Amino acid sequence: MWTFDNPPRAQWKERYGFEPTDAWLDHLRLSSVRIVDGPGGGTAAFVSPDGLLLTNQHVAAGQLQKSSTAGHDLVRDGFFARTRADELKCPDLEALVLVSYENVTDRVHAAVKPGASDGDAAAARRAAIAAIEATSANSAELRSSVVTLYSGGEYWLHRYKRYTDIRLVFAPEEQIAYFGGDYDNFTFPRHDFDVSFLRVYENGRPAAIEHYLRWSAAGPSDGEFVVLSGVPGATDRLLTLTQVRFQRDVGNPLQRKVWESRRDTLEAYAKTGHEAARRAGATIRSLENSLKRLVGQQQGLESPRFFARKEEQERALRAAVSGNPSWQRQYSGAWDRIDTAYREYPEKAPRLAISTLAVSRLGNVASLLARYAEEIGRPDATRLDEIRDSRREALRFTLLSTAPLYLDIEEAMLAGWLEEAQRTLGAGDPFVKAALGDRSPSEAARAAIGATTLHDVNVRRALLDGGAEAIRASEDPLLAMARRVEPVIRELRVWQEQHLRSVDTSAGQQIAAARFAVYGRSVYPDANSTLRLGFGRVAGYEEDTTLVPWKTTFHGLYDRAEGFSGKPPFDLPERWQAGREKLNLSTGLNFVYTADTIGGNSGSPVVNRNAELVGLNFDSNQQRLPSRYLYVDEADGSRAVAVHSAAIVEALIKLYDARPVVAELLGAR
Amino acid sequence: MWTFDNPPRAQWKERYGFEPTDAWLDHLRLSSVRIVDGPGGGTAAFVSPDGLLLTNQHVAAGQLQKSSTAGHDLVRDGFFARTRADELKCPDLEALVLVSYENVTDRVHAAVKPGASDGDAAAARRAAIAAIEATSANSAELRSSVVTLYSGGEYWLHRYKRYTDIRLVFAPEEQIAYFGGDYDNFTFPRHDFDVSFLRVYENGRPAAIEHYLRWSAAGPSDGEFVVLSGVPGATDRLLTLTQVRFQRDVGNPLQRKVWESRRDTLEAYAKTGHEAARRAGATIRSLENSLKRLVGQQQGLESPRFFARKEEQERALRAAVSGNPSWQRQYSGAWDRIDTAYREYPEKAPRLAISTLAVSRLGNVASLLARYAEEIGRPDATRLDEIRDSRREALRFTLLSTAPLYLDIEEAMLAGWLEEAQRTLGAGDPFVKAALGDRSPSEAARAAIGATTLHDVNVRRALLDGGAEAIRASEDPLLAMARRVEPVIRELRVWQEQHLRSVDTSAGQQIAAARFAVYGRSVYPDANSTLRLGFGRVAGYEEDTTLVPWKTTFHGLYDRAEGFSGKPPFDLPERWQAGREKLNLSTGLNFVYTADTIGGNSGSPVVNRNAELVGLNFDSNQQRLPSRYLYVDEADGSRAVAVHSAAIVEALIKLYDARPVVAELLGAR
Repeated sequence: MWTFDNPPRAQWKERYGFEPTDAWLDHLRLSSVRIVDGPGGGTAAFVSPDGLLLTNQHVAAGQLQKSSTAGHDLVRDGFFARTRADELKCPDLEALVLVSYENVTDRVHAAVKPGASDGDAAAARRAAIAAIEATSANSAELRSSVVTLYSGGEYWLHRYKRYTDIRLVFAPEEQIAYFGGDYDNFTFPRHDFDVSFLRVYENGRPAAIEHYLRWSAAGPSDGEFVVLSGVPGATDRLLTLTQVRFQRDVGNPLQRKVWESRRDTLEAYAKTGHEAARRAGATIRSLENSLKRLVGQQQGLESPRFFARKEEQERALRAAVSGNPSWQRQYSGAWDRIDTAYREYPEKAPRLAISTLAVSRLGNVASLLARYAEEIGRPDATRLDEIRDSRREALRFTLLSTAPLYLDIEEAMLAGWLEEAQRTLGAGDPFVKAALGDRSPSEAARAAIGATTLHDVNVRRALLDGGAEAIRASEDPLLAMARRVEPVIRELRVWQEQHLRSVDTSAGQQIAAARFAVYGRSVYPDANSTLRLGFGRVAGYEEDTTLVPWKTTFHGLYDRAEGFSGKPPFDLPERWQAGREKLNLSTGLNFVYTADTIGGNSGSPVVNRNAELVGLNFDSNQQRLPSRYLYVDEADGSRAVAVHSAAIVEALIKLYDARPVVAELLGAR
Repeated sequence: MWTFDNPPRAQWKERYGFEPTDAWLDHLRLSSVRIVDGPGGGTAAFVSPDGLLLTNQHVAAGQLQKSSTAGHDLVRDGFFARTRADELKCPDLEALVLVSYENVTDRVHAAVKPGASDGDAAAARRAAIAAIEATSANSAELRSSVVTLYSGGEYWLHRYKRYTDIRLVFAPEEQIAYFGGDYDNFTFPRHDFDVSFLRVYENGRPAAIEHYLRWSAAGPSDGEFVVLSGVPGATDRLLTLTQVRFQRDVGNPLQRKVWESRRDTLEAYAKTGHEAARRAGATIRSLENSLKRLVGQQQGLESPRFFARKEEQERALRAAVSGNPSWQRQYSGAWDRIDTAYREYPEKAPRLAISTLAVSRLGNVASLLARYAEEIGRPDATRLDEIRDSRREALRFTLLSTAPLYLDIEEAMLAGWLEEAQRTLGAGDPFVKAALGDRSPSEAARAAIGATTLHDVNVRRALLDGGAEAIRASEDPLLAMARRVEPVIRELRVWQEQHLRSVDTSAGQQIAAARFAVYGRSVYPDANSTLRLGFGRVAGYEEDTTLVPWKTTFHGLYDRAEGFSGKPPFDLPERWQAGREKLNLSTGLNFVYTADTIGGNSGSPVVNRNAELVGLNFDSNQQRLPSRYLYVDEADGSRAVAVHSAAIVEALIKLYDARPVVAELLGAR
């Protein structure tokens, strides 16, 4: 998960004899795209000069869902635009290309006065960051953002080219994109055609793209060196033991409760009918994915052998610090400061996790509006993050999305969540009291959703344009609920910022400095949804007493479907059942490789040393999951999983009659 | 692993609504065949009225090996007799059909005087058994044998129809019979065509067989009830904790050392050239199989959770015994007697395991001849087992086999084994001293094998016909070595019989009686190479976080071969590479089911409720292996693995052009 400013050139050269030019790296970076879909997203890559983007079906699934109607289910049935005129605009998808980056560490660090308290230091850093962002361009087409790396060891100004007119070109039937369902998720051998194509438009025309990846028709070979570019979401490998223990004992169990609660509510709703199942489907699958990943991560933490490795890492770093009087003086206090700060965290954690309305689209909209009214009058540097000036375009984009909203699902989600809050925090909790008043959760949800007009985008626009005054004056019952809970949420977030995040950053910066002192820059920063480089080799592995192959083929897909007698989730779409004879069944379908990935790398391009696209990352195996907290060596069977480039062309031609897309891909060679 | 005299009718009726007639059971029993190949063997089934037998390639592999020559490798290349005239006589294979059985428990128990010592009781039982066997027919065509069940709780006289003219009809290339090699052994999904056909002859003609299994062209379906008939080799589920602990801590580690030593010697030999590799191949694979199974069994014993279940079983039985004064009086002393007897066992165990020359064919021949000379003059009941009158035909069969012998492999095996003995037991050990004199292991082996003439069957016949006197007078150096070590071996075996086996049996009989008293006959005896019934259902299972299907197909075979880029052991024979287009690739290849099996069940027929053959058992998965010591429930993923009946017909027709065999199988419907 190396940053593009610090690629692992020494390792590449030594292990693989690979010495890319700067132009090679720039080309890969500028071909790589961060996909933002509300709180979710992933990675994509340009694969033609006409703005064609390749990503996973599951990265596009949210937009497929939002573009579907009761009679026309693009998630279930897939989508293919036979002409450019048929390409379908995504309601609220963003695509970001990292066009430049600049180290601003000194400016941020210099803002902090020597001897400042953690809280003062945090405020000074926020002000410095806001100032840096304010001097950089921020518009509908460009976003500037200062990102924190190495727990505050470095700060970088990232400038992104921003696209918001993104259209659906192709997606397969979900059943083949997600063959094997939740069972086969995070496993290998795997047999998923988790592929979609989007197209980026500018000014109503396909964007002209200079940097796009050429297509490898042959795909990868066993043992081949590959590079992956993408936007891994979050790792926590640099956390101290205290922070990791908090995750293990408090944070992860709470997160699990939150997701399970939402999934259970949605599943109960989905059971009420076919149309309900369609509306809830993509979100349920996304939650299942998050839960299975979390359980795997937690199993790592709960493994004594795994945790012992974390302990050994911290012990070794602290011993190195202790062995040098100057380091000892500068860095050794950091761990104790974190220990002290985290003492109050377990008690506060349930309130922090549960005091939110952002559990459904309208809940999130209402909360953002109430927060906007509360924050917008404050100086930029003191606002909660999502209301900062540099996020203005993103905020508008979220609030003014025209994606369909379903009031029945909104009510079910809000009621379910308020019940969860009441059950977990108790009836006397400030958030619960503010949200419910004297109503029951279901009454409160019915009252708020039953009479809200926030599902009308014109209402939302009028409120946003009307500013704090209009929002405060609105009698919308959902917005009223959001206004009532906002002070509770703000108090909790300010507490978290002042007592925890400020220490995480100040102490984290010290520990990062200690790590640089001891190990040099041979470490990379924790993933945080910024663009990174991964690398490794295509390779099978040992599991139990046998070997797992480096790839699967279409043969394996049909074998697995037949092996379960075609029962869901191992059933094949009609097109794939009927089309078997047309396919070259020996074509590679999925493959595994050793590059370091995590959620967010979905849709990442996998390229060979010629920067040709050989695969499309979409998953990892179970062995990989604990790598959130500690890099898991390939010798332990940790692998990323990609769709083989040959499978994409084979199925597009033979099953989907999508020759224009293929011509565009291969023409791009 | 129920005996045919006590089929689990209640369970069948209750769980599966299955109520077979006696004729149904007799038909299955008389269609089932025990295959004996020296110390190895397995199961087979009659599948035509003309004596056609279906079994595994790996059950026939020893005979394929012995029928091969340097220029003609039937193991590697397979074999198919296009006409009956081409069918190839196996050098030394026996087939046994259990034609009748009779409970002789009372006669054996009555022979023991009340209050007799364990040693006297054992001698009395041996005499009674010898007398029973002597009054029953024993000839080249019929074998009578008293078998011990329930650790001595029951004795049964089994009468077998015996065939010794058995001919090879068909075997596939080893690479497809054993696709995936040692890696895929004991795993599922599996993709092996582990099939062979033999034919039983009588008086130079195909035997006319009344009871043979009809063929199910469709094979099994998911969830279907199936019955398996076969000869499971050995389970140890009724052992006491003391006995199991001995296995865990002493017996299994020693067994592993013995097998690893033999395998290592053979692998070193096999590396000396292609022909050496051919000669050693089948034995190496057999040892690998035994080792992988042993390691899996031992992992079960070393699992605290698994062992706790064994402890709980014994605790429950002993508590039930203690709760009833009469039972307490009769049975409760048994466990302590075993504890006492086993105290000396760990010290003696290495000598018992290693003091033998029967580690190669000629070593075994020489030992049997020396033993014959030593034992034949004694009363039948006091002889070591393999020299008893009831075994006379089997002994002659072994000694007079015309299978090829290779002196280079014999010398390598003997030298390697004597080195192992010297290393493990020390130079001063009586066996080592008797075997080596003042020579080194390699000198002793070279001297013994270099000048022996025992590889000449006429020499062996002359010695056997000349009796004890001729054997004692022989100056053959290998036979001389066997005569020198025989007193050491006899002393050890007599010690084991008097101090251990007699207690195992006397105390085991008490514990068996306690078990009958507490649980009734709802238990079945431990497997001991006698014919048993298994049953269960065809069913996939959960593994890690996903599902394993109930079957694989030819698609899966090609997927796995391609997935490893065709690298050994995942390479396909030329015939299977070239013939892919001819096959219906959706045909089932292997399937899993829940019936209880263990080594020896290889080749067992799997039948549906119409007694039609739907599968050919050939393996189990890893989860099954600890079942040697404790029945492992299907909920734990324990499964047997069979070849699907449809795969056999499909490949025979499409790839092997073996229509006559198929016509015989399907004609039999």
